[in-house]
Amino acid sequence: MGAATVTSGLIGRLKDIVGAQGWLAEAPELEPYVLDQRGWYRGHTPLVVRPATVAEVSAVVRACAEARVGIVPQGGNTGLVGGAVPEGQILLSTARLKRIREVDPVDFTATVEAGCVLADVQAAAAEAGLLFPLSLAAEGSCEIGGNLSTNAGGTAVLRYGNARELVLGLEVVLADGTIWNGLRRLRKDNTGYDLKQLFLGSEGTLGIITAAVLKLFPRPRHVRTAFVAVTSPEAAVRLLGRCRAASGDGVTTFEYMDRTSLELVLEHIPDTRDPLGERHAHHVLLELTSSRERDDLESLLEAALEGGYEAGYVVDAAIATSEARSRELWRLRESIPEAERVAGAGIKHDISVPIARVPEFLERAREAVLRELPDALVVAFGHLGDGNIHFNLNQPPGMTRDAFMAHMPGINRTVMDIAVEMEGSFSAEHGVGRLKRADLERYKSPVEVELMRTLKRAFDPEDILNPGKVI
Amino acid sequence: MGAATVTSGLIGRLKDIVGAQGWLAEAPELEPYVLDQRGWYRGHTPLVVRPATVAEVSAVVRACAEARVGIVPQGGNTGLVGGAVPEGQILLSTARLKRIREVDPVDFTATVEAGCVLADVQAAAAEAGLLFPLSLAAEGSCEIGGNLSTNAGGTAVLRYGNARELVLGLEVVLADGTIWNGLRRLRKDNTGYDLKQLFLGSEGTLGIITAAVLKLFPRPRHVRTAFVAVTSPEAAVRLLGRCRAASGDGVTTFEYMDRTSLELVLEHIPDTRDPLGERHAHHVLLELTSSRERDDLESLLEAALEGGYEAGYVVDAAIATSEARSRELWRLRESIPEAERVAGAGIKHDISVPIARVPEFLERAREAVLRELPDALVVAFGHLGDGNIHFNLNQPPGMTRDAFMAHMPGINRTVMDIAVEMEGSFSAEHGVGRLKRADLERYKSPVEVELMRTLKRAFDPEDILNPGKVI
Repeated sequence: MGAATVTSGLIGRLKDIVGAQGWLAEAPELEPYVLDQRGWYRGHTPLVVRPATVAEVSAVVRACAEARVGIVPQGGNTGLVGGAVPEGQILLSTARLKRIREVDPVDFTATVEAGCVLADVQAAAAEAGLLFPLSLAAEGSCEIGGNLSTNAGGTAVLRYGNARELVLGLEVVLADGTIWNGLRRLRKDNTGYDLKQLFLGSEGTLGIITAAVLKLFPRPRHVRTAFVAVTSPEAAVRLLGRCRAASGDGVTTFEYMDRTSLELVLEHIPDTRDPLGERHAHHVLLELTSSRERDDLESLLEAALEGGYEAGYVVDAAIATSEARSRELWRLRESIPEAERVAGAGIKHDISVPIARVPEFLERAREAVLRELPDALVVAFGHLGDGNIHFNLNQPPGMTRDAFMAHMPGINRTVMDIAVEMEGSFSAEHGVGRLKRADLERYKSPVEVELMRTLKRAFDPEDILNPGKVI
Repeated sequence: MGAATVTSGLIGRLKDIVGAQGWLAEAPELEPYVLDQRGWYRGHTPLVVRPATVAEVSAVVRACAEARVGIVPQGGNTGLVGGAVPEGQILLSTARLKRIREVDPVDFTATVEAGCVLADVQAAAAEAGLLFPLSLAAEGSCEIGGNLSTNAGGTAVLRYGNARELVLGLEVVLADGTIWNGLRRLRKDNTGYDLKQLFLGSEGTLGIITAAVLKLFPRPRHVRTAFVAVTSPEAAVRLLGRCRAASGDGVTTFEYMDRTSLELVLEHIPDTRDPLGERHAHHVLLELTSSRERDDLESLLEAALEGGYEAGYVVDAAIATSEARSRELWRLRESIPEAERVAGAGIKHDISVPIARVPEFLERAREAVLRELPDALVVAFGHLGDGNIHFNLNQPPGMTRDAFMAHMPGINRTVMDIAVEMEGSFSAEHGVGRLKRADLERYKSPVEVELMRTLKRAFDPEDILNPGKVI
């Protein structure tokens, strides 16, 4: 399992490959690499290597493969499932592979190295007058290599797809150190198996992504954000269909927030206020964008909401009339995790179900968890437009953190069981890593688990790449 | 190589599995299954099975796997590279797997069986008020299973992507007969390797697709088609960028046609006329669509063209003001293959290069082939918006068909060499099949060929599935 002893000979060889600037071995320097961002996993490693070129990555992997020692690739270390935490293996940080090799405004592509911070990729696209649409909370520190190897989601999936769909080509170092140069920037290429798909979303277990050709898009010139009260989750789903049709598929964001998640924000986050006059039980934050030169999203949005109001499923709405006002609305949604944290301990989920079944999921899951923990605060919000709900429980008043968290395994099981029963997923966007490896075995069919094992054996027979993760 | 002798025992077992309505073994009945649509390949098979359920497909594959006899899956048999032609193997037709299992207008999905004809899938989506955007010349007879296993392209790739991007889930029969049920309809599901990607585009060599969950989209309510004369291929590329930005990425079609391709159509296809007053060397057929309830594509298109006119790269344009007029413009583009056929023998290509390099490709390829065949008629047209050009040569006057076609291997080599040198693909949308298997070995890096072999060995170690194709 890539768990052969790391000899001083190998350590020396790796240090030589990456040079004096390319490694760290002292405990305090290692700290940011061995602890995951939530502090749930503390790993250990004898050596962090920080190769500066793909040739160095290749040489590092080759040396480790020859010694049968495992490697854990790590980008910005912002993952939520412990996928980048080493357990004695060599840690390979992609942070120094940070060149933006090319931005081509005619081809609408950017060729970037794995260690580029997502925000820098976005900025490079913007500088060329274009958009790289991947956007998520960690964008100031996560790296594009990590985004691609985990098939990151975020707030623009509804319109632009997951990270996987934003890639035209990849450069990858394979388990024996071979470099596969698949850095194509073609929109069409039907010449055999689409190998890049193997490495996208496989969390570094089949190969290490060192560079990618990304798709860029025309930059949005018009944005309209609305905060809408609807009568029920069903009403929210109905509004989504209406907005998609009315806007010509211009809905970029469609986020659900229940009353509790809004209340938590209003209570714990300074300078926030309910944008609507009265209390409502269900809300949607929605955003339309358009890259047309001239457009009138406001009338379009008003007409869509008006229709929902007349049909009785939209109750009230606030449309942001300035960028500052739009940012205020977004802040309500983006502050939920922070508000949850301030309010107490949380038991969290990242499930998805078919969009049409979100209302049924919310009802069944709420009922089931309240049977187990009648006083818990259910906090339900998330990317309704993708069927991806963060169905969370917060520590009830009068229960200690430890007593509450003792329920986590049972509650997790209950919620995931319901999602999977409803044709859903136990991990919509955060991946598997270490945290959900047992869930994968539990929820996937034996056929599917065996297919995954077949792939892993074929591409990494010695289990060198991120051993112990995913499968 | 899946080439064990087919015994009468196996034949009997297969007939039992599919029942009396499910097989064909007499020569005249076999004809449509063993001859490809262009008549380039005539294969042979001892038995055509037409299973009616996935369980029957599974049992057929299991029986063949046990006997180590190869299977060639076939959909509508409209492929252009001989990928569905049997060479002594059992032929498995998906034609009876033709149920549309579900259309869900809330989830924007359709669940269909592999044997559904593409036009029927489009119609089912339209009946629900939605759009399934895959569209290509053979849509009246090709089957969705074939479209997915070849990752079909067509005329709406620019806006909606290839077939691969239109799929949420698959049901697949594996090489040993096991059924993998991956019929998920989730927009987000990061739980390990994305197995469906393996079977999409692998031309039936890794598994047989029996059903799929497809993405649907809001139906376009507005369409504007224009036939535009531009000063050069560079001008066409520039116009594409301008239209993408001006329309908010609403360009669905962007097809290039050189003068020769237009002339061929005007000469050989009845009731066609040049939509523009004067002769021009380079044309674009472009179409904008919008699914907004209210929209004004015409002003948008006029403004974009006006800008190109003022900047000097657009020379003239005709905007269709009725559906009939739009169909006339489309007919000019769609009739090119037929016009080529009437005009004489053709040497054809389906290459792609990065969009920005299409002009350079056209220049280099023209120069190179005219060096080899100075009198040949170069016919260049195709999906410029995808970088996918059909760069064809037609038989020159005064040269016999045979003398002309004797140049095919050399010309093919020349054109593909140039495309691949320019970071391009030797097969953009038609696939590999039998026709381009040697090209795959020639143009792919050894690393990539070996990765493909690794996949094939892992998923079909006995070479049961479509042996001799792709890799």
